Amino acid sequence: MILPSRKVPRVGLLIGRFQPFHYGHLAAIRFAVEHVDYLYVVVSSAQKNNEFDDPFTASERISMIKDALDGSGLEPSKWMAIPMVDTPSLALWVAALNSIIPRFDVVFSNDPLALSLFRRYGVRVKSVPYFNRKLFSGANVRRRIGEGTAWESLVPVEAARLLKEFGCVRRIRTLSDKFVRPS
Amino acid sequence: MILPSRKVPRVGLLIGRFQPFHYGHLAAIRFAVEHVDYLYVVVSSAQKNNEFDDPFTASERISMIKDALDGSGLEPSKWMAIPMVDTPSLALWVAALNSIIPRFDVVFSNDPLALSLFRRYGVRVKSVPYFNRKLFSGANVRRRIGEGTAWESLVPVEAARLLKEFGCVRRIRTLSDKFVRPS
Amino acid sequence: MILPSRKVPRVGLLIGRFQPFHYGHLAAIRFAVEHVDYLYVVVSSAQKNNEFDDPFTASERISMIKDALDGSGLEPSKWMAIPMVDTPSLALWVAALNSIIPRFDVVFSNDPLALSLFRRYGVRVKSVPYFNRKLFSGANVRRRIGEGTAWESLVPVEAARLLKEFGCVRRIRTLSDKFVRPS
Amino acid sequence: MILPSRKVPRVGLLIGRFQPFHYGHLAAIRFAVEHVDYLYVVVSSAQKNNEFDDPFTASERISMIKDALDGSGLEPSKWMAIPMVDTPSLALWVAALNSIIPRFDVVFSNDPLALSLFRRYGVRVKSVPYFNRKLFSGANVRRRIGEGTAWESLVPVEAARLLKEFGCVRRIRTLSDKFVRPS
Amino acid sequence: MILPSRKVPRVGLLIGRFQPFHYGHLAAIRFAVEHVDYLYVVVSSAQKNNEFDDPFTASERISMIKDALDGSGLEPSKWMAIPMVDTPSLALWVAALNSIIPRFDVVFSNDPLALSLFRRYGVRVKSVPYFNRKLFSGANVRRRIGEGTAWESLVPVEAARLLKEFGCVRRIRTLSDKFVRPS
Amino acid sequence: MILPSRKVPRVGLLIGRFQPFHYGHLAAIRFAVEHVDYLYVVVSSAQKNNEFDDPFTASERISMIKDALDGSGLEPSKWMAIPMVDTPSLALWVAALNSIIPRFDVVFSNDPLALSLFRRYGVRVKSVPYFNRKLFSGANVRRRIGEGTAWESLVPVEAARLLKEFGCVRRIRTLSDKFVRPS
Repeated sequence: MILPSRKVPRVGLLIGRFQPFHYGHLAAIRFAVEHVDYLYVVVSSAQKNNEFDDPFTASERISMIKDALDGSGLEPSKWMAIPMVDTPSLALWVAALNSIIPRFDVVFSNDPLALSLFRRYGVRVKSVPYFNRKLFSGANVRRRIGEGTAWESLVPVEAARLLKEFGCVRRIRTLSDKFVRPS
Repeated sequence: MILPSRKVPRVGLLIGRFQPFHYGHLAAIRFAVEHVDYLYVVVSSAQKNNEFDDPFTASERISMIKDALDGSGLEPSKWMAIPMVDTPSLALWVAALNSIIPRFDVVFSNDPLALSLFRRYGVRVKSVPYFNRKLFSGANVRRRIGEGTAWESLVPVEAARLLKEFGCVRRIRTLSDKFVRPS
Repeated sequence: MILPSRKVPRVGLLIGRFQPFHYGHLAAIRFAVEHVDYLYVVVSSAQKNNEFDDPFTASERISMIKDALDGSGLEPSKWMAIPMVDTPSLALWVAALNSIIPRFDVVFSNDPLALSLFRRYGVRVKSVPYFNRKLFSGANVRRRIGEGTAWESLVPVEAARLLKEFGCVRRIRTLSDKFVRPS
Repeated sequence: MILPSRKVPRVGLLIGRFQPFHYGHLAAIRFAVEHVDYLYVVVSSAQKNNEFDDPFTASERISMIKDALDGSGLEPSKWMAIPMVDTPSLALWVAALNSIIPRFDVVFSNDPLALSLFRRYGVRVKSVPYFNRKLFSGANVRRRIGEGTAWESLVPVEAARLLKEFGCVRRIRTLSDKFVRPS
Repeated sequence: MILPSRKVPRVGLLIGRFQPFHYGHLAAIRFAVEHVDYLYVVVSSAQKNNEFDDPFTASERISMIKDALDGSGLEPSKWMAIPMVDTPSLALWVAALNSIIPRFDVVFSNDPLALSLFRRYGVRVKSVPYFNRKLFSGANVRRRIGEGTAWESLVPVEAARLLKEFGCVRRIRTLSDKFVRPS
Repeated sequence: MILPSRKVPRVGLLIGRFQPFHYGHLAAIRFAVEHVDYLYVVVSSAQKNNEFDDPFTASERISMIKDALDGSGLEPSKWMAIPMVDTPSLALWVAALNSIIPRFDVVFSNDPLALSLFRRYGVRVKSVPYFNRKLFSGANVRRRIGEGTAWESLVPVEAARLLKEFGCVRRIRTLSDKFVRPS
């Protein structure tokens, strides 16, 4: 009797800080899931929050990812979010990633440092087509939220709703003050 | 005009070390998903591995959870696994959990310490019916793997397959040696 | 028989880095102790020292606080200083504070980030009247010490005496050099 | 004109974990304050709590110390409690202590390791007369609380009252269970 | 013109805690340097000291290694000692080692855990002939020092001299007391 | 019978980040070894790498030091390199150094902060003659590598060869991009 071979799914990795989640992230995730059977969405610098460049907690960022991907019609069976804290030494970063994420075949990234770190470990890295990077970047969305200029059109509607629940305007303005430490 | 109210899903939390994933975990997760719309499965002590009581990495543990839950027919849209490292002070443990897991309504747990820590924060905790705890515990599965007595029937078939891929017998025997530190 | 009720004292918290202790701190503490029976003076970022914005150790800062408050005539039975190290994640900061400071009723603070963090935990925060903030700030005192312009009148006489014992001029000038790391 | 010399107060250090505060601690502190003008009471292993040998937070331990010393009639102007976290390397322990505690002249301790660490730095250490150590030790008080045998007479009345507020019986029994980690 | 090829030296790694350095270590190092051109002697758990199983600092351990190897006539041009602190996760241990030790070709080790960790990275591991392991082990030397039975013949004369300078008898007896923490 | 006295060698310490190793470092080491019998070359901030100001790992830095010193004809019996990670508090830095480096008599340094930290511990510090600091500094070598202007003549030939093996141009350009974090 011939047994059917167990097909090994093709697994990808996409890493971001998602401060906050915007349409550029959504486009990159959509691009990635077209190329793999399953995608791990790594929420990096997971320990950071309430800082000027990192206002949102991992909890808030995973909420935005989940609601936006669900809202986009992406199958929940195709992805999972995994938070990852920074390592004290960048030389440990890929090993740390490998120790928390199940086996993967390819990393989707345009980041030159991530690329350089992965390459030393022989990991395959695939670049992601840019999606109007000037407009759709975390820094730009944060800047606009802080300034009070239009930002809602840059993020999926589910992310916008959550950002308002998080009190994003007040939080970002608080952190742009000079007194960024609790005392 | 009357808008349809957005239904807020009921979200649960189930915490375990999953060293390794066994049928007791599967039963607890099945019990939990019957009571909530969505479940976060927290992989605690995520930084531990290659230690006597914690042989498997978070990567390996999430692999076992994912393959076993997929194999059990549980909808991928109902759950997500989240790794969580220990905090230096247990007084920070619930705050750390809150900072990485999206909003949840109830914790499924029988662990008296977790209960005691959650209660101080006013979190609702629901106990899980025991599932032959003497047989189905991580410690018992690890002991049997190390001894070479029957263990495969204690874990879902997908977990058993992965454990063999991980070289679980050799790993657990190595760690039960006296030389538990790398030198 | 009617027992006299045990009066629960009203306890406050005032947080600062005290780099160094100046008359603005003294005024804030005086304001606070008028509103509570007992005040915990939290010395934050306690692990920092010998850095440009944080030149003094917790030891030196507690010395300044103690000598200046004793010199000001404030009752020692009204306050205690507690050093607190930074947390790796700001989401853990209030929990960390709660785990080292005895129960308190109110926090005295004007800092928007501290306010925002406390508010999420339902802690009552009371603002402190400003005391010529431009002149009486740690940054201004440090700048003047480094430049060699008049600074002694900005700090209580006991703090000035200690700062000279600590070799504050030399230390601050050393740290304003480019070589802020030990090598 | 002859200025009166500023008398330098004699300062002592007494270190303990205070898990929980008992009459042995009170006797040691009373002994110490007879020999110095001011005493720093260092609450060591401040980051530990909810562990079998370290059930109480620094917050709870400082509460017990403060209420018991106030109740004993000891002048608040004679002492201050300072929490101190463990250092990753014991070779850094004395340096860490020096960096948070103001200048001191003598350490009161019977602990051979503390003695050995201090001696290398030339710190003067004075031993404390033992106060029925078998009965008055943290381990004995914790054991009795857990067993349900008489323990209240071993601690000052203020500490007993607080311990009951903290739910000490339940907490200690929870921690003596096998499930000492949150999962 | 033909250039002489630059010969690439063969480099080895030998890892130990050296608590303390004994003749078993010396024999292993002599074995290793016969097989390579250069040897890195890694002093692991470098952050540990003044603990029962790890009484000596990295400073003291490197002193013993250096004096004993110099005394043994081994060429200083053949080796270098490198201290290495433990990693929070063992999954990061090989990556951490690689980030501090220059390129090496082979690891000399009999330790099953080190072997298992290295094997996953494809590192060549060569076992070292045992040298009366029952007698020549750090644990046995420490036990004998503490008991006051003969130990000097188990370590090179230079290590014995240093151990006496370090006050090894007193230190080990102090640490075998029950009060292993500074308070 | 009169025994010959055991001559105690004079030991020095020279601390640097060596990002990368250049002729200024070589000149300083040569100066130092003329004044002592043995020199410990401390590679500070050993945990840093792949950052803009700290591109190279400790592994790479020790390789450069070793090859350049061997190439310069300096006796291997005269020195050893020791990597040292940063301490969370600078007040612990000298204690940490003492806990990993064997006894030393003098520190060679021109760094005002290192000087200030050592002085408090009574360590003798000797300044090193400057060697065209504007040209021969890590920052200048890194800047030139990134810009593509002449840099090879600033570093020993062995360091230049290794830097090219490390892909220094690409690495430094990658790190000078805005995306200095892995995501």
